Amino acid sequence: MNYSNRITKIQEKLRRKKIDALLVRQPENRRYLSGYTGDDYGIAESSGLLVVPARGNLHLLTDFRYKLQAEKDVPWSTIEIYNRGALKLLCNLLPDIGVEKLAFESHYTLFSTAEKLKTSLGKKNIKLVPVKGMIEKMREIKSEEEIELIRKSVRLNETVFGEIFSEITSYQTEIDIRLAIETLMRRKGAEGASFDTIVASGENSSLPHAVPANSPIQKNESLTIDMGLILDGYCSDMTRNFVPGKPDKQYMKLHRLVRKAQLAGMAAIRAGIRCCDADKAAREIIADAGYGINFGHSLGHGVGLAVHEQPGLSSRSAKKLYPGMIVTVEPGIYIPGWGGIRLENMVVVREDGCEILNEDTTWLDI
Amino acid sequence: MNYSNRITKIQEKLRRKKIDALLVRQPENRRYLSGYTGDDYGIAESSGLLVVPARGNLHLLTDFRYKLQAEKDVPWSTIEIYNRGALKLLCNLLPDIGVEKLAFESHYTLFSTAEKLKTSLGKKNIKLVPVKGMIEKMREIKSEEEIELIRKSVRLNETVFGEIFSEITSYQTEIDIRLAIETLMRRKGAEGASFDTIVASGENSSLPHAVPANSPIQKNESLTIDMGLILDGYCSDMTRNFVPGKPDKQYMKLHRLVRKAQLAGMAAIRAGIRCCDADKAAREIIADAGYGINFGHSLGHGVGLAVHEQPGLSSRSAKKLYPGMIVTVEPGIYIPGWGGIRLENMVVVREDGCEILNEDTTWLDI
Repeated sequence: MNYSNRITKIQEKLRRKKIDALLVRQPENRRYLSGYTGDDYGIAESSGLLVVPARGNLHLLTDFRYKLQAEKDVPWSTIEIYNRGALKLLCNLLPDIGVEKLAFESHYTLFSTAEKLKTSLGKKNIKLVPVKGMIEKMREIKSEEEIELIRKSVRLNETVFGEIFSEITSYQTEIDIRLAIETLMRRKGAEGASFDTIVASGENSSLPHAVPANSPIQKNESLTIDMGLILDGYCSDMTRNFVPGKPDKQYMKLHRLVRKAQLAGMAAIRAGIRCCDADKAAREIIADAGYGINFGHSLGHGVGLAVHEQPGLSSRSAKKLYPGMIVTVEPGIYIPGWGGIRLENMVVVREDGCEILNEDTTWLDI
Repeated sequence: MNYSNRITKIQEKLRRKKIDALLVRQPENRRYLSGYTGDDYGIAESSGLLVVPARGNLHLLTDFRYKLQAEKDVPWSTIEIYNRGALKLLCNLLPDIGVEKLAFESHYTLFSTAEKLKTSLGKKNIKLVPVKGMIEKMREIKSEEEIELIRKSVRLNETVFGEIFSEITSYQTEIDIRLAIETLMRRKGAEGASFDTIVASGENSSLPHAVPANSPIQKNESLTIDMGLILDGYCSDMTRNFVPGKPDKQYMKLHRLVRKAQLAGMAAIRAGIRCCDADKAAREIIADAGYGINFGHSLGHGVGLAVHEQPGLSSRSAKKLYPGMIVTVEPGIYIPGWGGIRLENMVVVREDGCEILNEDTTWLDI
C-alpha cells in the first residue's frame, strides 16, 4: 500500500492550513496512513497514535506492549514508546520537532482528553486546532488496489455464506448459524467478522439489528443473514434472506419488492448522483407499494477499512458520489410481529454506473 | 439486578450536585443502570443513550433499529425513538422534563459531539456540565450478585481453557487455538470473548499483546494463552503459560519467579491496601531477581461489565482497595528474542484478604 503517498497528501493539506502537525488516534485512520495493525480496546484504550508533521517523518507513539508490533508494521516511522502516558511524551516530542499548532481529530477525541491536551500543551505554547474527517474524506475514494482488497473480502464472505447456506437445515438455532459463520470466516483467513453477524428468523428478523437467539429455527419462516468479514484490514458486508422450507405468498411478494428496490438503487448509482437520489430510487419502489413506513433506515453506507463509513446513502444527504466510492445497497421491509426482509450487496461507484462486487445470487431473483 | 437501587443512588448524587439530569452513553454504564443490551459499533455509532433525571423515570433514547430490543430489555423505562438523531430529540425532551443543567460523561463523549450539544442545548438555555467516572466509581464495588455472575464467567472461561488444554497438541498454529477457544466459548453460552484471545508461542510471547500467528507451534517452546469471555454481561480474564513439550531450565526458573510474584501480589491484596502497594509486593520479587525491566505493565486491573476497568493495580496509583472490588493479578516477564511468561488470576477484595475466583491450577505450581 502506498502509505507515503497518503501521508504526502495529508502533509500538503496541513501546510495549506498552516498547521504544524496532525495527531491521529482513530484506528482505521491510523492504519490507513501507516499500516499499523495494533488493536484498540475501545476509544479509552489506544494501542498508539500517530503524529503526522507537516514536513518530515511520521512518528508512531505507543507503549511497551505494542513495541514489537509497531516495529514490524511501520519500520519506516520513528517509533516512540511512552511509559507514563502519551500526553507526557507529546509534551516533550512536539516542541522538539517544532510544532506550535497541532490539529487533533475532534470526532475521535474524548472531551476530557481534549481538555487535558489543551491544558498541558498550552503550557508549551502549543495551540490545539480541532479538525474533523480529514482522513475519512480521503478514505471515501478507494484506489484500485483497495478495491481489489475489498473485492477479495466480499468474495471470501460469499464463500463462507455459500458453505453455510448449503447445509443450512443442519443448524438448529440462530446462534448455531452465527457461530458456524464466524468460525468459518477465521478458518478461511479472515481477521474476524467486521461486525456481529446477524442471524434472525421469523419475528426476530423484524429487528434490523437483531441479536441471534437460542430458539429453534422454524423451517417455513424467513431467515435473515447479515454478515461481513475483515480480510487484510478491509471489510465486507452482505445480507441474504431466504426461507429454509417453503415461503408463503406474502413472503414472496415482499421479497420481490425489496429486490426490485435494490435493483432500482443499484441502477441509480453512478458518479455525480447525490446520495439522497440513490436512496430515493429504491425507497420510492417500497413506498409506492405502501411499505414506506417499514423501511426505516438508509439505503446504504460506505465500506472500507471500517464497515460503516462515508458516504451514507441517506435521504438527507445531498453529497455526491464519486468514482471509487464503495457503498452497500440494502433496502429492507420490517413488519413487527411478522418479520423482516433485507437484501444487501456492495457496489463500486464508476463513471457510468456501478460495479457490483457480489457474485452470489442466492435467493435474489425468486 | 437491582437497577432501581443504582438509579436512586445516581439521582441522589445529581441532586446533591444540583444537576437536573445525567446523559449516559458509555455502553457498560448504560447496561449497569438499565440492563439495556444494545450493541454499539464503536463510540461513533451508539445504540442508544439514557437520560437519568434527578427525579422521575429513566428515559432510554434509541433509534428504530433497536426499538424492540429496548422494549424487551427495559420495559420500565420511557423509551423514546429518534428518527433525526439523538440531539434533536434531546432538544425537545429536556425542556419538557424541566432540565436546565445537564451533566454528560466527558470521558465518553467526543469533543465534536460535546461542542454540538453545547451549541444546540445552549439555544434552549440548558447548561452542560462535564462529569467523569460517576457511574464507573459505583461499578468498582461489586454486589454479591455481581460477584456470583463474575464467578460464573470465570468458571466457564476455565472450562473452555481446560477442554482446549486437554487436546493442546492437536492444534497446529496459534490461530487454530484461538479459533477453537472462541468457538467453544460461544458454544458453551458466552456472549463472546471479552477481548481478542491471545495465543502466543515462543518469541511471539514476548509481546504482551501478541497477535496469534499462522506458523506452526514448536513443542518445546512456551505458550501463553490469555483469554476471557462475557457471560450475562460480565467478563472474565485469565492467563496461563505452559510448554506443550519439555520445558528447559530457564523456562522453569522464570515461570516459578512469575508465580512467586503472583502469590505475593495475591497475598498483599486486602481492603485498605493501596493499589501501588499490591503492585509493589509482586514487582519486588521480579525486580530482586534482576528482571524488573522485563515486567513493563501494571500488576492488574479491575474486571466487571468491562474487561478493563477501575481500579488499576499500578505502581502510580495510591487509590485504596475496597471490599467487593474485583481485580486481576497478572505479573509477567518478557524477554525479546526469548519469549514471555504471564500468569493471571482474578480475585475479589475482601476485608481480610482476597478470594481467588479461579479454581484452575494448570501449570501454576510447577
